[in-house]
Amino acid sequence: MKNLKQRIAKDGVLLPGNIVKVDSFINHQIDVQLLNEMGVEFKERFSDIKVDKILTIEASGIAIAVITAQYFDVPVVFAKKSEARNLDKNAYTSNVYSYTKDKTFPVKVAKEYLKENENILIIDDFLANGKAIEGLIDIINQAHAHCVGVGIAIEKGFQSGGKNLREAGVKVESLAIIESIEGNQIKFR
Amino acid sequence: MKNLKQRIAKDGVLLPGNIVKVDSFINHQIDVQLLNEMGVEFKERFSDIKVDKILTIEASGIAIAVITAQYFDVPVVFAKKSEARNLDKNAYTSNVYSYTKDKTFPVKVAKEYLKENENILIIDDFLANGKAIEGLIDIINQAHAHCVGVGIAIEKGFQSGGKNLREAGVKVESLAIIESIEGNQIKFR
Repeated sequence: MKNLKQRIAKDGVLLPGNIVKVDSFINHQIDVQLLNEMGVEFKERFSDIKVDKILTIEASGIAIAVITAQYFDVPVVFAKKSEARNLDKNAYTSNVYSYTKDKTFPVKVAKEYLKENENILIIDDFLANGKAIEGLIDIINQAHAHCVGVGIAIEKGFQSGGKNLREAGVKVESLAIIESIEGNQIKFR
Repeated sequence: MKNLKQRIAKDGVLLPGNIVKVDSFINHQIDVQLLNEMGVEFKERFSDIKVDKILTIEASGIAIAVITAQYFDVPVVFAKKSEARNLDKNAYTSNVYSYTKDKTFPVKVAKEYLKENENILIIDDFLANGKAIEGLIDIINQAHAHCVGVGIAIEKGFQSGGKNLREAGVKVESLAIIESIEGNQIKFR
């Protein structure tokens, strides 16, 4: 998606460890108009698929997910990361390892919000090693629902998450795939 | 707002400690259509005010804020609660006491996303004791920006947050104000 790539090139901040900080338009300040363009693009790329619900993960996935959900006319469920006190104990849980934080944390979805045989589209902001997405797919499988696709804003194509998911047969659509980062230069696939 | 009150009465779950759980349509699963109605209503209630930016707090405020921002055609900034590693050290910080969790946590906004003299509308899901909102107003004041209003989905009118803010001259608009909870009965103002 051209607009998103241009914006990443213009406003993305490169930090050590191949971190691409997009705090000025996605992860802290949010350009809602750009998110709408992303929602339209996701709808186009998954136009042939019946989607019952969008699943994302707090906190940074929520904005893209709810804006996108308007184009699919479906509800959003966001998985909770924290040991949230008032989350129902009756939840599907998957443990996700975060490379950024170097720790494993539980991801939870209350059982009542994922039903058997529902078609679930995962939407998230980043895909790198894919551990968070794998955790969400694990939760969808626990619910005996179907993961019909994964829509990602920014994929780090030089990390293995996207490759692994596609090889496992998951339909992954990333709006911007970063092929490499060399010095201060981002190259898109 | 009639639809929201009806939904709270129908699907809200009352827990000990006057907790109203709205996980089935706002705080875990999100009814995006209802949020759009809320966005329209916020725009009406703040129609006479120039708004440059919407400020909210992660995670549960993000969905309402971004949907609402579409009607104001402005960006959203969400304050970060965690000790987020990749948040710029150059941030406005306020310490917020949470009654629910019985602890104080820092709330941060990177300085570059709040500019002097900007008109900031705060949008959040709940208003009870008002500590989170006071923290956001503190941050807005640190930035020498203006808090032009506070839009809340659900206010607990029997707690002091809304009263204190209004007495301090803040324009607070809550779409559903719970007057009292008696047994299993929610009474709206």
